[in-house]
Amino acid sequence: MIKKFLMTPGPTQVPPQVLSAMARPVIHHRTSEYSELFARVNENLKYVYQTGNDVLSFASSGTGAMESAVINLCSPGDDVLVAACGKFGERWRDLADAYGLVAEFHEYEYGEAVNPDDINRSLEANPHIKVVFVTHSETSSGVVNDMQAIGAVVEDFDAVLVSDSISGLGSAEIKTDEWMIDVVVAGSQKALMIPPGLAFVSVSDKAWALAEKARSPRFYFDWLKARKGLAQAKPTTAFTPPVSLMAGLDAALGLIREEGLQALFHRHIIMGRATRAAIKGMGLTLFSPDEDRSSSVTAVRVPEGVDEARLRIHIRDWYGVQLAGGQGPVKGRIIRIGHCGYYNYSDIIVAITALEMTLMDLGHPVQLGAGTQAAEKVFAEDIEATGDETV
Amino acid sequence: MIKKFLMTPGPTQVPPQVLSAMARPVIHHRTSEYSELFARVNENLKYVYQTGNDVLSFASSGTGAMESAVINLCSPGDDVLVAACGKFGERWRDLADAYGLVAEFHEYEYGEAVNPDDINRSLEANPHIKVVFVTHSETSSGVVNDMQAIGAVVEDFDAVLVSDSISGLGSAEIKTDEWMIDVVVAGSQKALMIPPGLAFVSVSDKAWALAEKARSPRFYFDWLKARKGLAQAKPTTAFTPPVSLMAGLDAALGLIREEGLQALFHRHIIMGRATRAAIKGMGLTLFSPDEDRSSSVTAVRVPEGVDEARLRIHIRDWYGVQLAGGQGPVKGRIIRIGHCGYYNYSDIIVAITALEMTLMDLGHPVQLGAGTQAAEKVFAEDIEATGDETV
Repeated sequence: MIKKFLMTPGPTQVPPQVLSAMARPVIHHRTSEYSELFARVNENLKYVYQTGNDVLSFASSGTGAMESAVINLCSPGDDVLVAACGKFGERWRDLADAYGLVAEFHEYEYGEAVNPDDINRSLEANPHIKVVFVTHSETSSGVVNDMQAIGAVVEDFDAVLVSDSISGLGSAEIKTDEWMIDVVVAGSQKALMIPPGLAFVSVSDKAWALAEKARSPRFYFDWLKARKGLAQAKPTTAFTPPVSLMAGLDAALGLIREEGLQALFHRHIIMGRATRAAIKGMGLTLFSPDEDRSSSVTAVRVPEGVDEARLRIHIRDWYGVQLAGGQGPVKGRIIRIGHCGYYNYSDIIVAITALEMTLMDLGHPVQLGAGTQAAEKVFAEDIEATGDETV
Repeated sequence: MIKKFLMTPGPTQVPPQVLSAMARPVIHHRTSEYSELFARVNENLKYVYQTGNDVLSFASSGTGAMESAVINLCSPGDDVLVAACGKFGERWRDLADAYGLVAEFHEYEYGEAVNPDDINRSLEANPHIKVVFVTHSETSSGVVNDMQAIGAVVEDFDAVLVSDSISGLGSAEIKTDEWMIDVVVAGSQKALMIPPGLAFVSVSDKAWALAEKARSPRFYFDWLKARKGLAQAKPTTAFTPPVSLMAGLDAALGLIREEGLQALFHRHIIMGRATRAAIKGMGLTLFSPDEDRSSSVTAVRVPEGVDEARLRIHIRDWYGVQLAGGQGPVKGRIIRIGHCGYYNYSDIIVAITALEMTLMDLGHPVQLGAGTQAAEKVFAEDIEATGDETV
């Protein structure tokens, strides 16, 4: 009787309503029944994206949709700017390299945020920069960049702004239109609460103008093909879509609409706040910034004398809690607790409890209950402030 | 109480065992639990592929995996040969065009098969041809090409042979190694009996040698990245895989192993034979060839005076049977009955019955029961010949 708690920043837990929607018999994708589902999904994606722009969907992981942004916006030899503060920011650079772009690369330490002033300086110095690639929620460190400030900078230039919001969309708010984010990339397996296999991009008019001229070779990830399918009276995709994942997404977006965007973001803010309070309460040190924006994933320094791999195996095998480790230069130095998507107070309390007990099991001095107490206080304060039941 | 029968050549019906496997809670993809599942899936894919080659998997539709073959084997300006006898053969040409290849294009009428001698002639005339792209089971027409003969031709040249077996693998036999097919592309939503969203390629040593030199830009679909993941002690994918579809595939491959390859192919041959007998028995004309190789999909000419769209809507709305129409030049002229994957005699009989009754409803002269009788005779003959219960 091992009860499992998936607490990684993707894949994330999937609600039973979504699992059962995915288990329904498969329908054909060139039918009215599917078009109606697809149209509803597109409408609800726009709601989560807070956009009037087209949202395109691809059968792929999030990386596929990132690649689609590179090849649909750029031609070989184009100047682009990549501002990276972690592993997924570096992926923009790798993609730019793979497609022969000339990338100016701003690199920040893992745990730091992108500085919008640096982007401004680069755009002023090089008016040929066509696209700025940034990460909204940097899953590898827990940093959530200030997309509103970055959008306000790029708005004044010809460059198109692309945000990897794969672990951000639906947990750390992004106002696509109001903040002038031309392209927002998202994935299914984070706050959208379905399994991996679907990815999305929203495309602004400014981005479409660039896409119509871009000459990178492309076929499967061609945005123009996808737009043609969307524009039909019975909207469809260029290629066979993952219909069962789409049925799951339809159910998940229904849950999001029911909760409402403001409640959704509030829940994530409170979960992040409670997790950080708990981590500090049990005497550990945060790696991700101690700010409300960090609402998707909380990164924690592994205390001296504790082996990170051993910690994660122990907490999984003894308490059923699956955490993520560090990537790149912070591998072995941090653990990450994901809380984007189908999570609430109960998951946070379980993860913190399991972490306290695991530290004790591994011989690290810890006062049992100190973390959970700190988390509970955050939840209680929230109930008092909002008059609502807890998140 | 509408009972639905999905009889299209992709997506196809999904067994309940697979649907329930997909509805299990999501597991993380960087765990031993997932690696074990992935290793088992890879082993069982090799069994279905009849190969010792690596089989790579991608979160994408089948077209994504086709694109992966083009970009991993070719460099801009390369000479290639495309032999096409339908819509999906034409896709190889579109892909070659998108990536700046110089494609010699053999075009056959829809309903015709590729002639291996034509391939031989082209390869003799142009020794620079690096890759030959063909379609194994041409879903748009029901033609199944003679891959054994084509493999025997290409074997004598330096060119690599790529087969789109998206609707063939697991229904129309392909002996990847014995027939010398260097790259076999497959999709999840056909005879592999799971929903769309996963695609596969097998890669021979001859193909790997080419892939290591190919210079087309690529990232998400890079075979070398995928191979690196496969080669690890705990095999994994380069990017987040669609774990729920993989869990479904694991269950589906378990069913295939239980049935056994020879029984699997026999079942498909008999279903194809019964469907063709029924079509002829009810006085209609086959569009796909009347041969046992055509075991994935049966294409039928729409009789004079019957409107194809009306027929398909009627049979769907009145009898719950979803058929496919024609594509490209045969749009409106044929209907297609899919029977690759989770199908047996019961589905064939239901589809034929519904087709007979639909024709009657639409005022086309038909003798009710003539088609089902012809199909039943095929099943009965098979039972007599094999001593087995019916397929």
